[in-house]
Amino acid sequence: MSDTVGKPIQCKAAIAWEANKPLEVTTVVVDPPQAGEVRVKIVATALCHTDAYTLDGLDPEGLFPCILGHEAAGVVESVGEGVTSVQPGDHVIPCYQAYCGDCMFCKHPKSNLCTSVRAFTGKGVMKADEQPRFRTLDGKPLYHFMGTSTFSEYTVVHEVSVAKIPKHAPLDKVCLLGCGVATGWGAVYNTAQVQPGTSVAVFGLGAVGLAVIEAAKRAGASRIFAVDINPDKFAAAKEWGATDCVNPKDYDKPIQQVLVEMSPSGWGIDYTFECIGSVEVMRAALECAHRGWGESVVIGVAAAGKEIATRPFQLVTGRVWKGTAFGGYKSRLQVPDLVELYQKGETLLDKYITHTMKFDEINTAFDLLHSGQCLRCVLTFDQ
Amino acid sequence: MSDTVGKPIQCKAAIAWEANKPLEVTTVVVDPPQAGEVRVKIVATALCHTDAYTLDGLDPEGLFPCILGHEAAGVVESVGEGVTSVQPGDHVIPCYQAYCGDCMFCKHPKSNLCTSVRAFTGKGVMKADEQPRFRTLDGKPLYHFMGTSTFSEYTVVHEVSVAKIPKHAPLDKVCLLGCGVATGWGAVYNTAQVQPGTSVAVFGLGAVGLAVIEAAKRAGASRIFAVDINPDKFAAAKEWGATDCVNPKDYDKPIQQVLVEMSPSGWGIDYTFECIGSVEVMRAALECAHRGWGESVVIGVAAAGKEIATRPFQLVTGRVWKGTAFGGYKSRLQVPDLVELYQKGETLLDKYITHTMKFDEINTAFDLLHSGQCLRCVLTFDQ
Repeated sequence: MSDTVGKPIQCKAAIAWEANKPLEVTTVVVDPPQAGEVRVKIVATALCHTDAYTLDGLDPEGLFPCILGHEAAGVVESVGEGVTSVQPGDHVIPCYQAYCGDCMFCKHPKSNLCTSVRAFTGKGVMKADEQPRFRTLDGKPLYHFMGTSTFSEYTVVHEVSVAKIPKHAPLDKVCLLGCGVATGWGAVYNTAQVQPGTSVAVFGLGAVGLAVIEAAKRAGASRIFAVDINPDKFAAAKEWGATDCVNPKDYDKPIQQVLVEMSPSGWGIDYTFECIGSVEVMRAALECAHRGWGESVVIGVAAAGKEIATRPFQLVTGRVWKGTAFGGYKSRLQVPDLVELYQKGETLLDKYITHTMKFDEINTAFDLLHSGQCLRCVLTFDQ
Repeated sequence: MSDTVGKPIQCKAAIAWEANKPLEVTTVVVDPPQAGEVRVKIVATALCHTDAYTLDGLDPEGLFPCILGHEAAGVVESVGEGVTSVQPGDHVIPCYQAYCGDCMFCKHPKSNLCTSVRAFTGKGVMKADEQPRFRTLDGKPLYHFMGTSTFSEYTVVHEVSVAKIPKHAPLDKVCLLGCGVATGWGAVYNTAQVQPGTSVAVFGLGAVGLAVIEAAKRAGASRIFAVDINPDKFAAAKEWGATDCVNPKDYDKPIQQVLVEMSPSGWGIDYTFECIGSVEVMRAALECAHRGWGESVVIGVAAAGKEIATRPFQLVTGRVWKGTAFGGYKSRLQVPDLVELYQKGETLLDKYITHTMKFDEINTAFDLLHSGQCLRCVLTFDQ
């Protein structure tokens, strides 16, 4: 790789020119990493609903044209000045939630919301010069996305946004630990801290919802209610560990009432998780939480401007409403632990990958994601 | 007292005949306690905003005619069949939140929401025969209120709703531990578990808000923001321990933004408490909680049908929304501990009592409560 160090690289990438248009798979220029930056050759990247959300124009802060993608794994090609935590050849997972280890949030035991590069990744640029490292062949700048932009054969990320992982981990599998699956696991282990013998309800049975079920089972939950309006999702939910599958369309009553009545105690469910992004479902999840101590965790990302609501009586009678981002994991610090867990054979990670394709087929992969037929589609570049 | 045992007692009480009408101080009949019940001679009773809330017709479940009152102390006159935890002559505090010790909620470490008599107290009657023990001289039944009905020289409560306290505790002071002050303390110690060196914001500077300030100071909070639109309340707030007094009317910006900017870290306040019952203030309290780990506790009782709302992003970025009832204290079990704390001289309890009156002046006391000039008014019966 030494012949590319310090030089711009021309490579394949998928450009999102504007909302609601297919991506253009074409050649882009990726500039060398500057101080505190790392250039990564992406080996495998999955698609996540947040990519689709932005591409569908639902994120009012979405910037175009840009390079989407944030669930991936690759190999460090080169590093900028001052970078010490990784070196060329290291295997890495880009992390949209950075971990600098120095800011107030990194130092606090309860938070993973590092602020070190947030102001820049939010604007689609790098911190060093507030410019992107991507451009078209004719020089038009292309914004970064979530500080990762993994829909490109090469990408540039901040050093604080890259987790070094063991070289023998399969990149086309552990790429999933960059977002959805890790988020579901962490919501259970870190945010809710589900206890053995308790009851859990999961709303939305995509990859995140299934990851919640997987972790809840592993944490020892004795009843796991899987809730979705698409009954085709129930087979996987049961395979992952759900004890009861519930379709809100089968009932005339509000789903929160149905679940309270189905709950082991008759007073609600100990932990509930919203994995969709619907504010109505967030309310249902809170309101079916157990009187006295039930906790409801918001994981899904709601559309811009939407608000959650409930009667305050729900809180006064002991329910707790919280949320999670990247499952509360301190990314650079803890993603390697998740890879280790996978390598011990203690996770269902492989099973989340329902489709694999060549990177060129990325638009087909987006169609699949929208169809509800796909948990995760992993795209690989020709090596 | 033996000449009254087993017989109806005629005594002075204040009847709430209907919403928005003054109470009638008159003579009522209080029947003897049945199985599992205790008849208590009330020595001192304070007024709380929940009494006023019901009298003002704001509680759609309020039942009339009734005997209000729930913050009091007295002496056991007689006990019904099977009562073992108290006996005639014991000094007690009636507890609107029962503690049976046997139900799922009493047994759970995180909850104080005993359900043993809830279905009956909610309907204004006693469990044994689903009838009230109060009637007018001409036989018209009068509903109980909150399972306590302390606006009567004698009242009947369930055994599970009465905390035995040491005989040398002054009843005209510790009566305050039956509701507001205990609620504020418990919100800090039990619900939020405020840690040393943290920041706290308190919305609403009545007795509950001041009790939050008192407990927050005792818990070691290093900054305590006291928030109220009535600046006359700031002197007491400072005396109780507030470090900063903030009047939302002094700012053009939303108060949550003002407080985030004033917060020690610039990212919000570690613990916030709503002590008013306004859903708009509950939102402000949540939204000025610290990014990453801030917790907001709803204490105030909102008007019927009102809903709280916020963007789910507030939770996803680490804020926790919770509530408290009677400060999370398991009443019968823990109220005696609070009395002990008072007797050690470690509380400001006496200072909450800004007014004392004869019971006959109860309507004047309600006017005082509405005026905002009164923290707590304690009424005593002629002995």
